[in-house]
Amino acid sequence: MPAATAFVPGHVTGFFAPAPDEDPARAGSRGGGVALSDGVTVTVEPGSGLTLGGAPTRIEPVERVLTALGVEARISCETPLPLGAGFGVSGAVTLGTALAATAAFGLERSENDLVGLAHRAEVESGTGLGDVVAQARGGLPLRTDAGAPGHGSLDGIPARSRVEYLSLGELSTADTLAGETDALATAGDRALSTVRETPTPAAFVAASRQFAESVDLLTDDLRSVLTAVDEAGGTASMAMLGETAFCLGTGLSAAGYDPSVCEIAATGARLIDVST
Amino acid sequence: MPAATAFVPGHVTGFFAPAPDEDPARAGSRGGGVALSDGVTVTVEPGSGLTLGGAPTRIEPVERVLTALGVEARISCETPLPLGAGFGVSGAVTLGTALAATAAFGLERSENDLVGLAHRAEVESGTGLGDVVAQARGGLPLRTDAGAPGHGSLDGIPARSRVEYLSLGELSTADTLAGETDALATAGDRALSTVRETPTPAAFVAASRQFAESVDLLTDDLRSVLTAVDEAGGTASMAMLGETAFCLGTGLSAAGYDPSVCEIAATGARLIDVST
Repeated sequence: MPAATAFVPGHVTGFFAPAPDEDPARAGSRGGGVALSDGVTVTVEPGSGLTLGGAPTRIEPVERVLTALGVEARISCETPLPLGAGFGVSGAVTLGTALAATAAFGLERSENDLVGLAHRAEVESGTGLGDVVAQARGGLPLRTDAGAPGHGSLDGIPARSRVEYLSLGELSTADTLAGETDALATAGDRALSTVRETPTPAAFVAASRQFAESVDLLTDDLRSVLTAVDEAGGTASMAMLGETAFCLGTGLSAAGYDPSVCEIAATGARLIDVST
Repeated sequence: MPAATAFVPGHVTGFFAPAPDEDPARAGSRGGGVALSDGVTVTVEPGSGLTLGGAPTRIEPVERVLTALGVEARISCETPLPLGAGFGVSGAVTLGTALAATAAFGLERSENDLVGLAHRAEVESGTGLGDVVAQARGGLPLRTDAGAPGHGSLDGIPARSRVEYLSLGELSTADTLAGETDALATAGDRALSTVRETPTPAAFVAASRQFAESVDLLTDDLRSVLTAVDEAGGTASMAMLGETAFCLGTGLSAAGYDPSVCEIAATGARLIDVST
């Protein structure tokens, strides 16, 4: 039976400027983030149903992608990342499904086409605004223009680094974004232009932190984690959007926390196994 | 002493349409190729000189990149790929130098900026027309518009496959390209549009073979290799530009040759080690 497996890195957004548009291929966000070597492994084969870590679940944008591709598939996902905590798991499952389904079913779709499908599905479901294009690219991606391939544009900060993250809980993307678009866009574009002028990992983390402070999304628990990292001589910031702290290097462990540890994903989403 | 190492995949072009332009950032080629898991490892540290497999050598576009970055560096490269045989080794060394020098010297350059530098250096030196942007991306890259980031555009064919290659000798890129631009552009654009309509690995190899036949670049020795692969039930084509046969799968070994074997590079150029 044909099957294919894709790996898609997790993605933490450090700062962003929402870019709404009636056309979901043009909508999304500008911003910057970290693609993580911790990601989602997505296996697709003929059948039906979606499991994440063995548990049946529904992820609406995945259903949109399968409908667009015209296939019925059984999708099995594994990930060490928590859900709803700002790691782009829904984008990863959606993009991984698009890639692996194309290989498993022998579809004739280009990579830009598949990234575009997954991006539009996330925007239409309200589950993400920019994870998919960043996850397709890997590294420390900068979303310099919002949207799917052909509309948006990306750059990146050359870097190799340990990443630490500590998740305290969930935040609802939809609730958080409601009504805050203008303030977020102003702060997000300010952070993006700072980082484009100085495209270094340190400038990225500093701009992310400044963004998190200025848009007033920090919970008290998160604020105390970030302050502890400051006091230990590091800099951490908040995953947009989850109650999650992240840093490059060893800031969280130096402050006495027991964070999850991975690396910047050197590379983006990719097929890792195809059997037909 | 600060040092950094980058890995850049080799790249074999299957078909191309030259796109000359006075501005080297806009010049290059449209086309399609295969990024190879066999590539070049480039280590950069303070000092001077360039070695490839331990042997001192000069690669002009590397000197252009170092000048543009304003650094003096010692560059040590290792690769299993032959030189001058259509594997994009010069592009790989040039892009790897740009990435690793940025990390080793703590420069403030984005990835698009570095890819653009390396692309322009190759075009200005006449050593390559599209390898660098393809090597930055990895996979089975389609160069849908020519030029550096910000001018050109890329897509890709989702695929995972064994790659076999057999190099018979060198071809001079400059000599081969002289005066043939119009015929190449017509055949290259025809191949590209075929593959964009059917973005599959099989269609890519078939279009590459048809391109190689139609532009009359096959040597007698290469033609006999490709014919032997046909007779064994496979399809191989010619690396543009080298006296090199390549195929996806096992076509060359099935025909009784003893090819080098690698994989489609799942991913593009990346830093693999930084010590500062």
